[in-house]
Amino acid sequence: MIDLLIKEYKNKIDTRLDMLLPQSDKQYKSVVDAARYSLLSGGKRIRPIILLEFYKLCGKNDDCAYNFACALEMIHTYSLIHDDLPCMDDDDLRRGKPSCHKKYGEATALLAGDALLTNAFLTASKTMGIDFRYVSESIGYLSACAGIDGMIAGQILDIEDIFKNSLEDTLLMYSLKTGKLLKAAALIGVTLAGGDETQKSAAISYAENLGLAFQIIDDILDTTATEEQLGKTVNSDDKNDKTTVVKRLGIEESKKLADKYTNAALDSLNTFSGDKTTLTELSNYLLNRNS
Amino acid sequence: MIDLLIKEYKNKIDTRLDMLLPQSDKQYKSVVDAARYSLLSGGKRIRPIILLEFYKLCGKNDDCAYNFACALEMIHTYSLIHDDLPCMDDDDLRRGKPSCHKKYGEATALLAGDALLTNAFLTASKTMGIDFRYVSESIGYLSACAGIDGMIAGQILDIEDIFKNSLEDTLLMYSLKTGKLLKAAALIGVTLAGGDETQKSAAISYAENLGLAFQIIDDILDTTATEEQLGKTVNSDDKNDKTTVVKRLGIEESKKLADKYTNAALDSLNTFSGDKTTLTELSNYLLNRNS
Repeated sequence: MIDLLIKEYKNKIDTRLDMLLPQSDKQYKSVVDAARYSLLSGGKRIRPIILLEFYKLCGKNDDCAYNFACALEMIHTYSLIHDDLPCMDDDDLRRGKPSCHKKYGEATALLAGDALLTNAFLTASKTMGIDFRYVSESIGYLSACAGIDGMIAGQILDIEDIFKNSLEDTLLMYSLKTGKLLKAAALIGVTLAGGDETQKSAAISYAENLGLAFQIIDDILDTTATEEQLGKTVNSDDKNDKTTVVKRLGIEESKKLADKYTNAALDSLNTFSGDKTTLTELSNYLLNRNS
Repeated sequence: MIDLLIKEYKNKIDTRLDMLLPQSDKQYKSVVDAARYSLLSGGKRIRPIILLEFYKLCGKNDDCAYNFACALEMIHTYSLIHDDLPCMDDDDLRRGKPSCHKKYGEATALLAGDALLTNAFLTASKTMGIDFRYVSESIGYLSACAGIDGMIAGQILDIEDIFKNSLEDTLLMYSLKTGKLLKAAALIGVTLAGGDETQKSAAISYAENLGLAFQIIDDILDTTATEEQLGKTVNSDDKNDKTTVVKRLGIEESKKLADKYTNAALDSLNTFSGDKTTLTELSNYLLNRNS
């Protein structure tokens, strides 16, 4: 059931993503090709789906939030392209294919990432059918969550790996690196729908807990799954000598912690009176995924 | 006179830029330090000044456009940080100091650039005292001019240097690489002030012509000025084997062309009834600069 829903969403999101980037008939073809290659080469589209489901949960039935959903996926993809670069994690494989710089070279991959980040805001600004006030507010959340006090703070802590005195430090890094974009998803969904402060707080709590669960599962899969399952290099945390929750607690205890955070995320949904089926199923699907 | 005005503007812009980035007291200090280092280490602040002057030219006397002015400077600075990276122009010197990656390492410089780009949109979205409609429209211009069909297209054409069949090709590359951010400056100034379509067209024409003159002068200085004057590596076009207008036409003819474009830019200002003194002096200053 949830598989089918994800697939339906993914088709709709991918169709829009395809239209939102220029076609490959320009003089500056290489950067267009590289951006399209990374953006359209798979991915479960979890962040856009969460955004769209929170929008729906606040009573909206239209497609007006799709531009922000696509913007969020562009930002997620840019972060993967830059994360894979030689000066960062130096990963050759992404979503089962050569990473962007392996296929197009470093300069083009760098610029393709920059382009996706920039065009995310273009896409968001072109939102129609929603009050400009909510659009501006949501652009604020998108940039704050992705920016220097958000995802980027998490990326530098992750790369430097100097911030590892305790489990709490590691969890804070996860909440920045992974949690912040999920927070943007949930919060923007509620904001665009005109939700109130109570709903925004609940959306944030959902996303923060889901983000922790999500990253812990990612770390478990990095040690237990195969390259074919993940479509990316496995044991990369060992290779890059990174501190993870799994290294601290072992797989069994980490799994329990991910359970705990998923349940806390689901609890946050009780604030909303709408249909929570999809978000509930999606949260459980993310907990039990093997890729 | 214009020197003094630039200095006054620069002080005011720099004070705001300083407040718009987090302080260096975070766990993720390195990326904050790197972003602050590049953003606050000089630069003439030409783009913000043009934005603020067009805002004024359309009859506004308040400070409400400063957030966009600062956002534009953040985007300009991010583009310099990424341009200087080893996989791009590989430049060790910028604004008279070690370039960002020479001082902070490649990963931190990459993320500092990403952070400035992202936080530019955060800054723009926090604009107060201006209709949300104009804010959204201006975010659209900012991202379109900086994005894959704008500055980034120019950067890839510049790096690849495959697009050099004619003088027109080179000028098109200049208009993308340099002209687009100047276009954003002028156009956003008019938009935030509630200017009409005729004023927007004139602003675009000013910026497009100024951008060509600006880049031609840049190329001339690359061959004639000293490293001390420019604060960056000279003869870099030769080093990177790049096609420039100077290589095509020689210095004298290039200077005439820059004159021609500056005059065309100044002609465009006739559409506006306000005080054009500063923009006129600034345009001539840029034409005759030696750094």
